Amino acid sequence: MRGVSIIGIGTTPFGILEGKSLKEIATIACNEAIKEAGIEKEAVEAFYLGNFISGILLGQETIAPLVANSLGLPKQVPCTKVEGACCSSGIALRQGYLLVAAGLANFVLVAGVEKMTSATTEKNTEGLASAFDQETEGQTGLTFPGFFALIARRHMHQYGTKIEHLALVSVKNHGNSTANPRARFRKKATVEEVMASRMVADPLKLYDCCSISDGAAAAVLCPSDIAHQFSRKPIDILASAHTTGFSTTYEMDDPTILMATVMAAKKAYEMARLFPQDIHVAELHDCFTIAEIVDSEDLGFFEKGKGGFAVEDGLTQVGGKIPINPSGGLISKGHPVGATGLGQVYEIVKQLRGEHENQVRNAGIGLSHNLGATGQVCTVHIFKRRG
Amino acid sequence: MRGVSIIGIGTTPFGILEGKSLKEIATIACNEAIKEAGIEKEAVEAFYLGNFISGILLGQETIAPLVANSLGLPKQVPCTKVEGACCSSGIALRQGYLLVAAGLANFVLVAGVEKMTSATTEKNTEGLASAFDQETEGQTGLTFPGFFALIARRHMHQYGTKIEHLALVSVKNHGNSTANPRARFRKKATVEEVMASRMVADPLKLYDCCSISDGAAAAVLCPSDIAHQFSRKPIDILASAHTTGFSTTYEMDDPTILMATVMAAKKAYEMARLFPQDIHVAELHDCFTIAEIVDSEDLGFFEKGKGGFAVEDGLTQVGGKIPINPSGGLISKGHPVGATGLGQVYEIVKQLRGEHENQVRNAGIGLSHNLGATGQVCTVHIFKRRG
Repeated sequence: MRGVSIIGIGTTPFGILEGKSLKEIATIACNEAIKEAGIEKEAVEAFYLGNFISGILLGQETIAPLVANSLGLPKQVPCTKVEGACCSSGIALRQGYLLVAAGLANFVLVAGVEKMTSATTEKNTEGLASAFDQETEGQTGLTFPGFFALIARRHMHQYGTKIEHLALVSVKNHGNSTANPRARFRKKATVEEVMASRMVADPLKLYDCCSISDGAAAAVLCPSDIAHQFSRKPIDILASAHTTGFSTTYEMDDPTILMATVMAAKKAYEMARLFPQDIHVAELHDCFTIAEIVDSEDLGFFEKGKGGFAVEDGLTQVGGKIPINPSGGLISKGHPVGATGLGQVYEIVKQLRGEHENQVRNAGIGLSHNLGATGQVCTVHIFKRRG
Repeated sequence: MRGVSIIGIGTTPFGILEGKSLKEIATIACNEAIKEAGIEKEAVEAFYLGNFISGILLGQETIAPLVANSLGLPKQVPCTKVEGACCSSGIALRQGYLLVAAGLANFVLVAGVEKMTSATTEKNTEGLASAFDQETEGQTGLTFPGFFALIARRHMHQYGTKIEHLALVSVKNHGNSTANPRARFRKKATVEEVMASRMVADPLKLYDCCSISDGAAAAVLCPSDIAHQFSRKPIDILASAHTTGFSTTYEMDDPTILMATVMAAKKAYEMARLFPQDIHVAELHDCFTIAEIVDSEDLGFFEKGKGGFAVEDGLTQVGGKIPINPSGGLISKGHPVGATGLGQVYEIVKQLRGEHENQVRNAGIGLSHNLGATGQVCTVHIFKRRG
């Protein structure tokens, strides 16, 4: 295995990208990443595109070659769509990483895309629910706000986490994204506003939930030993892990622990030879406020049950012990499901280059955590700036 | 790159698998492949699952971890759904191949699955049409029978191919599958019956078209140097190629040539250091009779324009110059779209082991060709028996 680095990133803003199709937004992000990498399109040897529900929402599948043709990649390039619910582009990154690490390719383009806002809310609900097992739990009518509400109630019961702790995650993330030009929401929120927002699935209110969004993000990978030829600030990928969790809630002994995250984190730390306390900045999968709290524990930043209190103590703010989601996260930056994983990577790369609009000082090592379905699939990546 | 071999295969029959869900049929095929390989489930290091339209047809995505959990794979196994229209499980095979070839894993499970017959014809038409570019050609109402009918008309115009040549492909493939217990149709057809079947898209009639089916197929891959420990008859993968073609018909200079096939064939022959005339048996992507003719030319078995005449001359029959689709092919074995690529591999492996119900004598080298969408994506694999 050789080292792999990121030499170019690209993205659209996350939000309502009216008048722009799935193909167009994916093309914009990919073009930007290729341009930043300073490579010719002819140099791209493989393309992995993460996407979750373009089939259900838009009646459009087979989008990897479609986007590749829109981009103008050479026809001999193998193009693959990968799907793993909201973790789809975390998986795309990992597939590209494996190819370069193994020496099978030098330049790989990875991207994620989702176009959601042109579909109705009902269609989006149907699409997102396709990540449940439709033979079992999907039949109960459980939705993702419902699933994470169950986790929240259990977390509150077991550890004394308060509704205000959830609200504080939302307040932090809304505050963070005021500086982020890529974020869907750029307005601060107060605890009172979060608490007063309408109930979605008790105890989760509207401001506890990520928003349906459009967006695309992309990155160009190459071997670390030549990365400096293409980027003044290459970002090295120290670890890449991808795991499987339970398909249904009723199989989980303790739904306050998402095992796929715990296992992916363990693998990633071992691979990078690092510990949670070595991470300077992290983008976590906060599809709901409770998810950020659970993630922060499962990744080892805080002891199980202490995640809510850590938010209250300001430990996850920029300037705190471990700044979490300085981008605004899924809650305030937006969650175009198939694009989220690489959207997180975009933010971490900007942080490690020292170019972020909400910069964590001296950020040298970053982590991204992408989760799919009922914690059924997870990727964790660790990144490092040089020098 | 190290050698990669197939040490276990599994499949369901292709057809109407009433009362069996997508998850169940995928599990059956995977269990069979693992059992045949004689490995423990704990030995599986990665899982790639090809599937095209379970989202649109069944409202079920994120099926790779779902099937993995149904199988009982260890939770640390990375599970990835790959999609490339009807080429989805050709791509799954290639992803697994790359991982083992690169030395990143020793045992990889690859599978393909589709459950179509529980959905309405309208829903299937909508699902299959999702492989067209919905922003351009998809809007015209072009369907896949229509697309291949255009190719047929052009082929007839340019090369004098006759409607009877198309019919003879159907007659051959229906004849072949009478011996195949995995085939949906096991009844011979005559030229008269094919010609008299109802028109679908002129000149393609019902018997020129593959049928919507359910099915799953799977294989276990491992390094060639240890394959004999797990199988008395390991089958070596000599080549694996994956390419991209045009997204729309109007971009093609000559729609009688599917460039993705031409390029994938070239790559695969180079990789295997073989020529078309070295292949003893081939499973080609005959989604329509004209497709088999075009494929047989694009793969170099016959000169462009001569494919139809070759069928007339019996060259593609078992016992002929190059036996094509002794399984019955997509037309008569069935075409559960996401499962087809690995279904072809199942048939080739049986041929090379000398265990096929419609055995090609002394078959030592086999080829499988899997195509997606408007020839937008293609994989070609070449296999060899030992000794």
